[in-house]
Amino acid sequence: MKWKARIVVRLKEGLNDPEGRVIGKALKNLGYRIEELKVPKYFEVVFESDEPEKDAEEMCRRLLANPVIHTYSYEIEPLGE
Amino acid sequence: MKWKARIVVRLKEGLNDPEGRVIGKALKNLGYRIEELKVPKYFEVVFESDEPEKDAEEMCRRLLANPVIHTYSYEIEPLGE
Repeated sequence: MKWKARIVVRLKEGLNDPEGRVIGKALKNLGYRIEELKVPKYFEVVFESDEPEKDAEEMCRRLLANPVIHTYSYEIEPLGE
Repeated sequence: MKWKARIVVRLKEGLNDPEGRVIGKALKNLGYRIEELKVPKYFEVVFESDEPEKDAEEMCRRLLANPVIHTYSYEIEPLGE
């Protein structure tokens, strides 16, 4: 069976997100009232699996996220077949 | 009023996503049956606005996305106040 996972990998609270800060500042300079702008990593994965939850969890732990500095979350939807 | 926008900026179909390809290959090498892996840009923006839809649309057009190579979409939720 085929699945699509949307995986968001965020920096833990308090860690520096320079890309987000720079983009937030640029938007402020354009006149928007930005309070916070973050740039998490975001992955869209189409994969075959009999255990999609287990696989998505493992992919995060083994490759996509670094548990020292990241938290992660994901949503999985079936694509059929 | 305060809002949170989740903005996804994707490469147009057919354009090269080398980061996605490399990460997809790495996951395949770990044994997962990856069919496709994409790494869109993803922004989480907290901002004040009286016209949040208009502002989010403008932020995409003016700064976050390049219309030549990107498509974008966003979801906006109220944060109150």
